[in-house]
Amino acid sequence: MSIKAVLFDLSGVLYTDDTALPGALEALQRINNEGLHIRYVTNTTRSTRTSIISKLTKMGFHIDTEELFTAPSAIHDYLIQKKLSPYLIIHPDLEEEFADLVAANQHPDAVVMGDAGKYFTYEKLNPAFRYLIEGAPLLVMGINRYFKEADGLSLDIGPFVKGLEYAAEIKAIVFGKPAATFFHAAVKSTGYPPEETVMIGDDVQSDVIGALDAGLQGILVRTGKYRAGDEKQLINQYAINGHCVDDVSAAVDWIIDHK
Amino acid sequence: MSIKAVLFDLSGVLYTDDTALPGALEALQRINNEGLHIRYVTNTTRSTRTSIISKLTKMGFHIDTEELFTAPSAIHDYLIQKKLSPYLIIHPDLEEEFADLVAANQHPDAVVMGDAGKYFTYEKLNPAFRYLIEGAPLLVMGINRYFKEADGLSLDIGPFVKGLEYAAEIKAIVFGKPAATFFHAAVKSTGYPPEETVMIGDDVQSDVIGALDAGLQGILVRTGKYRAGDEKQLINQYAINGHCVDDVSAAVDWIIDHK
Repeated sequence: MSIKAVLFDLSGVLYTDDTALPGALEALQRINNEGLHIRYVTNTTRSTRTSIISKLTKMGFHIDTEELFTAPSAIHDYLIQKKLSPYLIIHPDLEEEFADLVAANQHPDAVVMGDAGKYFTYEKLNPAFRYLIEGAPLLVMGINRYFKEADGLSLDIGPFVKGLEYAAEIKAIVFGKPAATFFHAAVKSTGYPPEETVMIGDDVQSDVIGALDAGLQGILVRTGKYRAGDEKQLINQYAINGHCVDDVSAAVDWIIDHK
Repeated sequence: MSIKAVLFDLSGVLYTDDTALPGALEALQRINNEGLHIRYVTNTTRSTRTSIISKLTKMGFHIDTEELFTAPSAIHDYLIQKKLSPYLIIHPDLEEEFADLVAANQHPDAVVMGDAGKYFTYEKLNPAFRYLIEGAPLLVMGINRYFKEADGLSLDIGPFVKGLEYAAEIKAIVFGKPAATFFHAAVKSTGYPPEETVMIGDDVQSDVIGALDAGLQGILVRTGKYRAGDEKQLINQYAINGHCVDDVSAAVDWIIDHK
C-alpha cells in the first residue's frame, strides 16, 4: 500500500526546547515537494492552535490552522458537530479555543476537561458531576496519570477524569492520541484512508502504537522522549507496519521510498 | 451462639435530626442492664469524637470516647500502631482528631483522606500523590461516590480516592463500614469474638451485610435510611445470621432472647 499522507507529532519530532531539530524543516519541504498531504497532531492541552502556530512560525515552520489537530480542537469540532454547549474545566490559556461555544445563560449539555492543573477545584468539578448525572457526555483531552515538573511528578488530567467517571458511573470519551477517533479525524481531513497514512512520533505508545491500532502505518523516531529499547514494543507486535528510524529525515526517506 | 456485645450505628438507629428515636434511650438501658457490651460505630468523617459525643449527650445519650468507633478514629489508631506520620486531606472540623500525630518538620509517610468537600484542591492533592509514589499508604474514610445536599447531589470522598489510586497505581486502605477491619477493631475492644457480636444498623449494605461479611451477626432496622424491600438483600444471602425488625427496641428484644 502506497503512502499518500503523513501525520507529524510536534515536540520531540520537529523541535525540542523551542528549536527546530536538525533536518526537520528540510524533511517537511521534501514531503511537500512529493505532493504528499501533511497534518500535525499533538496532545498539548494548555495551548490554543493560534499560540502553537505562532510558536512554530518563530522556528521557521509554516503551518495552516486546518493542518493542525490538537485534542482541544478535536473536542471543539465534536461539540459543533453534535450541537453541544460545553461546561469547561480547562486551563485559562486554552479558554479562547472554546470562546465561540460558551453561550451565556445556556444550560451546558457536555463536560469538557483538559489538564487544568491548579484550576481543578471542587467548585469546578462538582457542577461537572451534576451535568454528567443529567446525561452530559464527558469529553476529555487525555487520561495521563502525571507529568514531570522541575520539582517532581505532578497530577495530570487522568486522575480527575477517573474521579468523575467513578462518581457519575460513566465513561469519558477520550480525544487526543492514542484515541483512534483522534487519528481518524486527522486522516479523514486528508481524503485518504488510514492505511495510506503514516504517523511519525517519538512516543511509542501514544503516537506509534496508537496509530497502528487505528489502522494507520507508524514510524518511531529516536529523538525527543524516545528511550533506548522503545522499538521492542513495536517490533514484537507490529512488525508489518511499524518501523523505527533515527530521526524525522530518515522517516521521510522511508516514506518517499513507499509512496 | 449467644450474644455478648452489641454494635450500634448512630444516625437513623438511635436518632434522626438531632432527636432520639422513640425507645432508643430505653433500649440502650436494657442492653446495659443485661450486662452486654456496647460499642457505637459510625462513618461520619467531618466530626471529631468529642463533637459527636457532645451532640449525643444533648439528646440524653451517655457515651464514653472508648465506646465510639469512627472512621477517623480507626485511622488514628492505625497510624499509632504503625508509627506513621500523616499527610492530611480532611475537613477542617476534623483536624483536632489528628492534632497529636502531625509533627512539625516530619516527612509524612502516610496519606489520610476524609470527605474534605471544597478543601479538595490541587495544591492539597498533588503532595499526597508524591507521598504515595514514595510508598506511603493511602488511608481513607470511605469511598462513597456522592452525598445529598439541599441543592442536589455533590461529590463525596470516593472520586478523589479513585483519582489518587489511578495516578499512583496503588489501592487505598478503606476504613469505616463496610470494611471488615473496621468492624473487627470495634469487636476486638469488647474482648469477644465476632460471632458473639451483633451489629444494628439502618443501611443494609454498609451496616448489616458489611457486618455479616466480617463474621458478626446483623440486624437491620426499619428506621433512618431504610427503604421498603431492603431486607430482601439480606434474606436472600444471609438468612442464618441476618434479621430485619421494626426499630432498635425490637432489635434489643431479639438480642435479649439470644444472649
